[in-house]
Amino acid sequence: MGSMGNGDKVIEEGKYVLLYLDQRGKWLVKVSKGREFHTHKGVVSLGDLVGRPYGCSIFSNLGERFFALKPTIYDLIMKAERPTQIMYPKDIGLELLRLGVGPGKRVVEIGTGSGSLTMALANAVRPGGMVFTYETRKEFVEIAKRNLSKAGLLDYVTFKEADAKAGLEERDVDAVAVDIGDPWEVVPLAEEALVGGGCIAIFCPTINQVERVVASLAEGRFADIETYECLLREILVRPGKTRPATRMIGHTGYLTFARRILERGLPDPP
Amino acid sequence: MGSMGNGDKVIEEGKYVLLYLDQRGKWLVKVSKGREFHTHKGVVSLGDLVGRPYGCSIFSNLGERFFALKPTIYDLIMKAERPTQIMYPKDIGLELLRLGVGPGKRVVEIGTGSGSLTMALANAVRPGGMVFTYETRKEFVEIAKRNLSKAGLLDYVTFKEADAKAGLEERDVDAVAVDIGDPWEVVPLAEEALVGGGCIAIFCPTINQVERVVASLAEGRFADIETYECLLREILVRPGKTRPATRMIGHTGYLTFARRILERGLPDPP
Amino acid sequence: MGSMGNGDKVIEEGKYVLLYLDQRGKWLVKVSKGREFHTHKGVVSLGDLVGRPYGCSIFSNLGERFFALKPTIYDLIMKAERPTQIMYPKDIGLELLRLGVGPGKRVVEIGTGSGSLTMALANAVRPGGMVFTYETRKEFVEIAKRNLSKAGLLDYVTFKEADAKAGLEERDVDAVAVDIGDPWEVVPLAEEALVGGGCIAIFCPTINQVERVVASLAEGRFADIETYECLLREILVRPGKTRPATRMIGHTGYLTFARRILERGLPDPP
Amino acid sequence: MGSMGNGDKVIEEGKYVLLYLDQRGKWLVKVSKGREFHTHKGVVSLGDLVGRPYGCSIFSNLGERFFALKPTIYDLIMKAERPTQIMYPKDIGLELLRLGVGPGKRVVEIGTGSGSLTMALANAVRPGGMVFTYETRKEFVEIAKRNLSKAGLLDYVTFKEADAKAGLEERDVDAVAVDIGDPWEVVPLAEEALVGGGCIAIFCPTINQVERVVASLAEGRFADIETYECLLREILVRPGKTRPATRMIGHTGYLTFARRILERGLPDPP
Repeated sequence: MGSMGNGDKVIEEGKYVLLYLDQRGKWLVKVSKGREFHTHKGVVSLGDLVGRPYGCSIFSNLGERFFALKPTIYDLIMKAERPTQIMYPKDIGLELLRLGVGPGKRVVEIGTGSGSLTMALANAVRPGGMVFTYETRKEFVEIAKRNLSKAGLLDYVTFKEADAKAGLEERDVDAVAVDIGDPWEVVPLAEEALVGGGCIAIFCPTINQVERVVASLAEGRFADIETYECLLREILVRPGKTRPATRMIGHTGYLTFARRILERGLPDPP
Repeated sequence: MGSMGNGDKVIEEGKYVLLYLDQRGKWLVKVSKGREFHTHKGVVSLGDLVGRPYGCSIFSNLGERFFALKPTIYDLIMKAERPTQIMYPKDIGLELLRLGVGPGKRVVEIGTGSGSLTMALANAVRPGGMVFTYETRKEFVEIAKRNLSKAGLLDYVTFKEADAKAGLEERDVDAVAVDIGDPWEVVPLAEEALVGGGCIAIFCPTINQVERVVASLAEGRFADIETYECLLREILVRPGKTRPATRMIGHTGYLTFARRILERGLPDPP
Repeated sequence: MGSMGNGDKVIEEGKYVLLYLDQRGKWLVKVSKGREFHTHKGVVSLGDLVGRPYGCSIFSNLGERFFALKPTIYDLIMKAERPTQIMYPKDIGLELLRLGVGPGKRVVEIGTGSGSLTMALANAVRPGGMVFTYETRKEFVEIAKRNLSKAGLLDYVTFKEADAKAGLEERDVDAVAVDIGDPWEVVPLAEEALVGGGCIAIFCPTINQVERVVASLAEGRFADIETYECLLREILVRPGKTRPATRMIGHTGYLTFARRILERGLPDPP
Repeated sequence: MGSMGNGDKVIEEGKYVLLYLDQRGKWLVKVSKGREFHTHKGVVSLGDLVGRPYGCSIFSNLGERFFALKPTIYDLIMKAERPTQIMYPKDIGLELLRLGVGPGKRVVEIGTGSGSLTMALANAVRPGGMVFTYETRKEFVEIAKRNLSKAGLLDYVTFKEADAKAGLEERDVDAVAVDIGDPWEVVPLAEEALVGGGCIAIFCPTINQVERVVASLAEGRFADIETYECLLREILVRPGKTRPATRMIGHTGYLTFARRILERGLPDPP
């Protein structure tokens, strides 16, 4: 995912493209000689894309036109293999900014899941940073590795098939991202791992989890504790009949943010 | 903003810190020997912070405790000098992901404004990428440069005090971000500048702007045109009395996204 | 739907009850000797409810328990026969208050549809008021009549199978409620029909309709023109895992309100 | 607030009007010979309005035009004297429908507060119904009485300066509306007072209150327990620059609804 070598403009053998038919038909597919992709609008010969530029069109055997787009990190997240709920870009985007994640940063992630946040973190810390991601469930580690591999981001992730509650090995990390069911259990460990002033973000589906994790942050050496929810609404823009979409996702989870300080946050005398 | 040299842990002369008092009292200040910062909770001697670690506390002459945090890209955006409305992290975070912006990318920004999005883009494309940002109003260019300078990101931005409507010089760029009052005017120019499959994002405060810009995208060589609005709600987490904040920002703007294709998007026969 | 005669406590032959199984299983059914109601949880002998009190339980032949509730106006709206989109209680409730509808009021409704708003209006104007409702499509008039009949509210509605655009016969009405595709066409007619200070409410799914109808109101003798959208979110309250529902209705329509004045609203000299 | 006597069209001595200047200038004032009303746009001689029709204009001594509108229940709520937070029409409207409140209904309200919900309930139950409203704080009872008096609705309200927790005197009421800090305390009393199938609505600012009150409902004889929050967003409709308002109320409270049944709701064998 670098920029402006030839591989950025031309589709190469073995690369993934986002095959775009329309708003409801988008697929992440691997381009390879002889490979075919079957859709409800006919069969697309993916091999024919090799050597052609990104953004080009290709027709199925039924004469339907598709476009071959270069997958962005957004596409990779939305099209990730996912046995469970993933974190969505609306939440991930805000979290990346709040965590201050950028090139060169060292980040611990607790709860790899299917790796959607991992992809975004890995993409952001390139080329000099690293994401250390903990996950106890072997099958999720495998899925996440596949997703990161498709994204070409394996080099920026250290997978740890281990229980973060047993201890984090990293120290002085810039940021910690948590997405597990009992996040309060790892708050003291995150405190140890974070550099002074470092950031933590915790994703919780329920408000009860939020209350418990905020209490654990407030007891520890954390300041600037805030919780948000982010709602995304699609607008259907049609000439003369523009309106928001009838259905929307009403809830994914709450995002709690805090900053590591060097003393407990409760006021005490100088 | 690299990681884990000594400069990442220890506050150095001339650096900015986020001085944190409480949720309503956060300031971006420059640390310098002999410098004082006056607040409603007393005077803080900023020079005393030199050589101390990020996350440490410092007391004002009135005995109030402040914490010295390392500014994240989020802090830099929220504390940017801003004569006008800025783009907010909720919108910026989503836009970065949709644009596929990451290390090494080349991005054109049309409408620098006070540079809040510019900061986020520059932070994301480091170290090998570049943001080319167009702005016609000299006073905004100056403000944006000051904001980028505070953020230490000037090396990743090429400022162009010029009217984008007169033409974009860049070609084969990975992404274009637009935030001007008449964005439809630059859609054909963005089309020329973008590499095949490249992404465009347009921020519009009004729905009428959205309708016009979507129409111009649909007439050009763009696919995957979508518009969203993003609502952020703070949750006040207090033991036994947790509730959303009474007031919230009800609207900043709409985000429209599209992808550059190599042919016009309207169906035509094979 | 009066109060506290015996018919208010005891289920009588021929009355409707809301048969309640659980949050997903609620049905509006007519109680009658010998009548059976088939559900996925077995068959309920509705006749057995005659003479029993509202709120009582009844078991299906499979041993599942149902409760027999007296239908409220909310239930009647939600369970109305509806070939098209109906107005929802979140919008209706606000509209009733903004229109100042209450006992004794005379209200014109333009666009009966399936009669969901008609029911709420008729319920509110009892016993001395009247709803005059216009609808051009015969099949909708029939459906609305059936819905109003189930609700026992036919006495408070004058159905007019006629095109409101050809003229409204009523004068000095307290309120006008509009829900048709081209509401701006009837604004001048509503102006004629409304008493001084009377209220109008217009429901529009698209923002383009809103812009046109607001323009027509501003040109006429109307003041206090405001537009709102109302979003309803269900909260799933579960011990220890409370959270908003994952899915929600993101849009039904916009509500525009205005007040009839006796002169044009644009400022002119005294 | 009946309909179409002369008093409905012509402003009479001693009546209240909504004096309308613009979206930010609306006042509920009493019309009386010799009375003046001072605004930032000059002095209005209210006495001059006697005998003129609702909807008419009147000029201040500075030549500014105001309109004299007949107050609706919405205006009366929004302009109520209120020492504390009131319930807003977005919540009240939905609650009236969910409670099934209408002409003739007998309703118990627990927590009169400043009487905003009381006004809406009283308006709705006319002419044959009654609202029994409990409030322990004498000063609130006085304020509520003044608000109800302005609205001309005193005949439909029985004020009870008493602690509802000490017991409710009413039986077989159609609906109970609760707005106090510890609503779970009165759930068993509401259960006793409600007729079979009757409705209860509870307004709670915090989610912790919601959790406790839902638990108490689930333990009692209630079914169909649901919780909602309602968000209202103003749309600023301006030719060519339509957009939602920048600021909005992000939270007022949660609404919990349930229905009185004659047995405990937990499944038990037939």
